Amino acid sequence: MTISPGATLRTIRETKPLVHQITNYVVMNETANATLALGALPVMAHAREEVEEMVGLASALVLNIGTLSAPWIESMLVAGRAASARGIPVVLDPVGAGATRFRTDTAGRILDEVDVTVLGVEAEVRGVESIGSGASAAEIAGEAARRFGCVASVTGAVDHVSDGTETVAVSNGHALLAAVTGTGCMSSALTGCFLAAKPAEPLAAAAEALVAFGVAGEDAAVGARGPGSFHVGLYDALAALDPATLDGRARVEA
Amino acid sequence: MTISPGATLRTIRETKPLVHQITNYVVMNETANATLALGALPVMAHAREEVEEMVGLASALVLNIGTLSAPWIESMLVAGRAASARGIPVVLDPVGAGATRFRTDTAGRILDEVDVTVLGVEAEVRGVESIGSGASAAEIAGEAARRFGCVASVTGAVDHVSDGTETVAVSNGHALLAAVTGTGCMSSALTGCFLAAKPAEPLAAAAEALVAFGVAGEDAAVGARGPGSFHVGLYDALAALDPATLDGRARVEA
Amino acid sequence: MTISPGATLRTIRETKPLVHQITNYVVMNETANATLALGALPVMAHAREEVEEMVGLASALVLNIGTLSAPWIESMLVAGRAASARGIPVVLDPVGAGATRFRTDTAGRILDEVDVTVLGVEAEVRGVESIGSGASAAEIAGEAARRFGCVASVTGAVDHVSDGTETVAVSNGHALLAAVTGTGCMSSALTGCFLAAKPAEPLAAAAEALVAFGVAGEDAAVGARGPGSFHVGLYDALAALDPATLDGRARVEA
Repeated sequence: MTISPGATLRTIRETKPLVHQITNYVVMNETANATLALGALPVMAHAREEVEEMVGLASALVLNIGTLSAPWIESMLVAGRAASARGIPVVLDPVGAGATRFRTDTAGRILDEVDVTVLGVEAEVRGVESIGSGASAAEIAGEAARRFGCVASVTGAVDHVSDGTETVAVSNGHALLAAVTGTGCMSSALTGCFLAAKPAEPLAAAAEALVAFGVAGEDAAVGARGPGSFHVGLYDALAALDPATLDGRARVEA
Repeated sequence: MTISPGATLRTIRETKPLVHQITNYVVMNETANATLALGALPVMAHAREEVEEMVGLASALVLNIGTLSAPWIESMLVAGRAASARGIPVVLDPVGAGATRFRTDTAGRILDEVDVTVLGVEAEVRGVESIGSGASAAEIAGEAARRFGCVASVTGAVDHVSDGTETVAVSNGHALLAAVTGTGCMSSALTGCFLAAKPAEPLAAAAEALVAFGVAGEDAAVGARGPGSFHVGLYDALAALDPATLDGRARVEA
Repeated sequence: MTISPGATLRTIRETKPLVHQITNYVVMNETANATLALGALPVMAHAREEVEEMVGLASALVLNIGTLSAPWIESMLVAGRAASARGIPVVLDPVGAGATRFRTDTAGRILDEVDVTVLGVEAEVRGVESIGSGASAAEIAGEAARRFGCVASVTGAVDHVSDGTETVAVSNGHALLAAVTGTGCMSSALTGCFLAAKPAEPLAAAAEALVAFGVAGEDAAVGARGPGSFHVGLYDALAALDPATLDGRARVEA
């Protein structure tokens, strides 16, 4: 496994992959702008009537259950199955799974019916027991990867990405990322971009996405006066990411 | 009644209450970010299947009818009744009531079926007679509070909050707040945060929320070059609100 | 035909027309804020139950199919027919038409059933043949205008607006507009604002909107550090547009 966020970022900017996102209402604008700022192309489409056709045009699919309802679940399943059938990588961000039965069941159903490539795992869900309560983030990542047969990406102060065998820790980032809504969802969207450019190595691609987003967060924090200006600076920083220096800034441990 | 926005803000930041918001598509990101910037935790969930469970995890519920449709109305009613049954405070922002029969009827139905704690009242609805045409904002607040048996919060150049007996005027704020969409909705979301921290005194909590938001607006206006930079500065200013000086900056008259 | 974006902007700011927008989830906040920053009033409403009543209060209707689903299509048709019946100008932004059959069919159905005043045309749709593949943007504009019996507004590095007889080229703008999601949708929303103020001259109004938006883009680019700060600056620049100097900055060729 080669982790080179700079090389993959260069591929993203050269090939401008289309990343189909079925995501939540709160963050749609944010994940679309983060995708564009990185150098890929976002497309948002959720209608049952078109998701199968749309995902066929895309190089990755991102599913996010942040503001769920029955018709969206059906569309996520249809799009996800179509992506799986065509070998298009799928990212699942199960926002709020654990908080309500509806979300937990939906995340489980997507994991059952879709060949999820990378699963985002929230280390903490307020008010409920987390998947690996008591366990370290690295253990949670490894356990989730083995249990669901995919790469698990656990974000936190230090992020942990695992395929069940190997686990990579990424320490890039900044505390202000937690002060803006949707940064977890942006992280999943960018994971989709990196997967689109490096589909054969999902563990490396997922780790690289977290490096890129974390470095952008570090850059955005410089001169930020709070969450508002940090949020704005995040798009500036994503667009300004330099493939030539990105690998040198990666804080990755295998 | 003690009005101390600083003390309540301190409680919000210490307890980080979860505020469940069923709001409109236009402002979801904005109200979530305002909630986070203040120091509380937002959760957006609107599915009939989960709102009852979700509101049970929350310390306040905010209902906003800005982009209404039938399934959302049902979810608002279900969540609102569950909140009422559990004594969780409810804020209703009846955006556009008066403009169409659908919105007027929906606002009325929520007021009938849910124990609304604080009702936002728009002093002006374009193209229709306002509730108290000809009346002063203070009179409108008092009348709405008595009529609907709740605290009424009428925002404008000067805000007026009333429980039908006592009325408080809040003069904090800035003209640029009217130049950004969703500031009224943010104000309702922050009212939910203050209610979550001070549920026993809704009149004081609602007034305190308007002080906090108004002071943040005053701070955001410093150095703003227009509505875009003001909007960004608003989140910075909310996060930077200082509990120690907030009471001294309140422009409140009983 | 007189093209005077400054004069029409002055009318917009004096009359503050209400512009009803049934648009996509990704950009709702953005188009509402752009409308407000320009000086008009946005209203977002999509429920079947109220769109007919709402459009009756408005001076223009903007339909945008960016995140389509069946109930929204029905509402767009109902609102569009009501607007046509009352002589209210309608802008159609057929985002993604050509990419999926669902979107292409919906755009076609709206063009059939609604008296569309100005049709936005995307010169490039990724992955599909564009309407006038091989043709120049000016030819595409003329052909679309004649085919659909409306004004066609084709945006690109240089924009072209045509009523099928006359074609106007607008060269204002900045490359950063393509780095932010929803700028095309904002452009359609502003076209609605200009149409509301100058309904009898849709070709001139559409060209004027593109001048105003392009000039705002030029101003926002000054000092922008990337797409995030450019996006923020765009609202500042729209609000700061000066009717007295706007005509002199127009780069228009008939």
